Order: sequence, then C-alpha cells, then structure tokens
Amino acid sequence: MVRGDAREEVLLPAALKLFARHGVSGTSLQMIADELGVSKAAVYHHHHTKESIVLAVLWPAFEQVAALVERVGSLPAGGARRRALVEGLAEQAVTHRQLYAVMLRDVAVPALVASEPRLAAPFAVLRRELQPDHEPATAPLRVAMFLAGLVAPAGDPEIAQLSDEQLRRGIVDVGERLLDLG
Amino acid sequence: MVRGDAREEVLLPAALKLFARHGVSGTSLQMIADELGVSKAAVYHHHHTKESIVLAVLWPAFEQVAALVERVGSLPAGGARRRALVEGLAEQAVTHRQLYAVMLRDVAVPALVASEPRLAAPFAVLRRELQPDHEPATAPLRVAMFLAGLVAPAGDPEIAQLSDEQLRRGIVDVGERLLDLG
Repeated sequence: MVRGDAREEVLLPAALKLFARHGVSGTSLQMIADELGVSKAAVYHHHHTKESIVLAVLWPAFEQVAALVERVGSLPAGGARRRALVEGLAEQAVTHRQLYAVMLRDVAVPALVASEPRLAAPFAVLRRELQPDHEPATAPLRVAMFLAGLVAPAGDPEIAQLSDEQLRRGIVDVGERLLDLG
Repeated sequence: MVRGDAREEVLLPAALKLFARHGVSGTSLQMIADELGVSKAAVYHHHHTKESIVLAVLWPAFEQVAALVERVGSLPAGGARRRALVEGLAEQAVTHRQLYAVMLRDVAVPALVASEPRLAAPFAVLRRELQPDHEPATAPLRVAMFLAGLVAPAGDPEIAQLSDEQLRRGIVDVGERLLDLG
C-alpha cells in the first residue's frame, strides 16, 4: 500500500487545489485526506479544523503585510509612509491575486483576521498608519474601505481581466484618491 | 406542551438574534429550532440549509439595492445617476448597519451574491451604472472597491463608533473621490 504524506508542504498545495475546484465551503478535511491518500486522522494531526488550513494557506500573504508594515516604519510618518504602504499593498495584491481569488470567494476576511492575533496586530498598525491627516471623522472609513477593496474584488470576473500592471496602477490610483498620499 | 412556531416572521428574527450572539458559523439549524421551541424538522420545512436562512435574513437589504437600481433608471445616465446611486447606497448602508455588522463578520458576500441570481442581476447593473466615464482600464476596479467598501467594514469597531450621519457622509465622500460624481 502506498502511504500518503500529510506534511505541511504537501498538505497546503493539495488543499488549495481542492479549494479552487470546490470552494472552501465545499471542501472537507476528508476530501483533503483523500487527495493526499492519507487517513483523516493524519490530516487532523496537523490541523484540527478546516479554518486552520485556510489560515495556513493564506499565511504567506498575510506575513508579507506584517513585513511591509515593519519595513515602512523607518520612513517619516505621513504622506510618504502612506504612499509606501499603498504601493506595497498593491504589489502584494498583484502577487497573490490568484490565491485571493480562490480563497476569498467564500472566506469572510474580517472573521479570519479577528480570529488570529498574529493577523490582527499588523492590521491594526496598518489601519492607523494609513489614516490621512485631514477630516478625522471619516478617515477611518476611507482606510477601511481601501483595505476592504484590496481583497474583496479578487474574485470579480471583470477584475480578473485586468493585467497585473492595470491592477497595481488601479490600486495605487484608489489609494491616492482616498488617502492623501504624499 | 407549548408548540413553537417556525413561520418566517418568527424564524428570521430568532436566527438573527443567534447570529449576533454566536456568529453565523457558530449557529446551527438545531440551535434555531431550540430557540423557537420547535423540532429541527419544522425549521427544515422552511429552510433546508443555514445558507438559505442567511440569505432570507439579508434579503430585505438586498431588495432595497434592486429597488434603488430600478428607481435611478429614470435619471439621465452619467454623473447625476451615479450620484443618486451612491447616495442611495450610503442611505442603505446606514439603515442596515447593524444587520451588516452582525451578518458580514462571517459571511463571504461575493459567494452569497454569486449563489443567488436574484442578487446577481441588480448587482451587475449597479456595477455597470457606477462606472466613471474616464480611465476605462481601472474604472471597474474603482467600482468594485467602492462596493466592497460599502459592506466589508461594517464589523470594524472603529467604524461602529461613527454616527449614522458620519457614515453616510463618509460613504458619499468616498464615492465622490472614486466615481467622478456629477
């Protein structure tokens, strides 16, 4: 009997493949085990829930956000730092656009971020750092709408037709309009 | 024995109450049945899945979007119609902000819209009608980011602190910045 392998570097690509084919909600731990040719217990040994697998699949993308937040900390606060953040986030949205499109079509991002302190902390910094200097009452709304807009349209067929360069330029354009970039 | 009631006008408020308390993902058909004092079969008679209940709870909000899209059809196409749409959507986001905050914290909206033709059709019109006249390459992205931003930040604690008037004004402000309103 061929014994399968449920190590992380095998499990996560197999899970992503099933998520792309069946959606996250249509994929079970049993299906992931079947895809790997292992028992459900072997999968369970690494991840007790599907949500844990979803988080692990998305983790590299979120880690880049944390690294970006740390990197721009050396820039002077204000417009220049906001511009660097927006450009970094646009770059990131382009790099991970396929991942986002697969995952975010049926994963609720606010719940995911709130569920995981390692995600929540850099996002709190990001929200604070992106705030434009003027109109304090609506500034948090403009930031929240910009961040929501980064990930939510990933599955939109019209957005899927944009080239990487159009997507990057479009996100920076929206950032300029909403966030008073320096 | 007191017999419970699973009619829609009793079921939906009970479901919303449980969604607010436990999240959508933490609420089961059985819990809804228990809350109503009926059997799970009685709930199943009306809704075969939790997703169907989620859709029914959100339906009044989505119906208003469809009505808005129909109403602005009498205005001349272009900036004036876009402004009427943005103002209507801002009004709607304020009216349903508690509903959005409860539901959207763990419901993935793109999947919900795609799953239901009665939702998808008005949203397709909305996406087309909101497109600004200039910069056609990034126009769909600006529209998608605006629409994502309408609902996604509803659960954000910072946004929850805004007054209704600040929320309404903030959404119109973002619409003005992104959509070349007339």
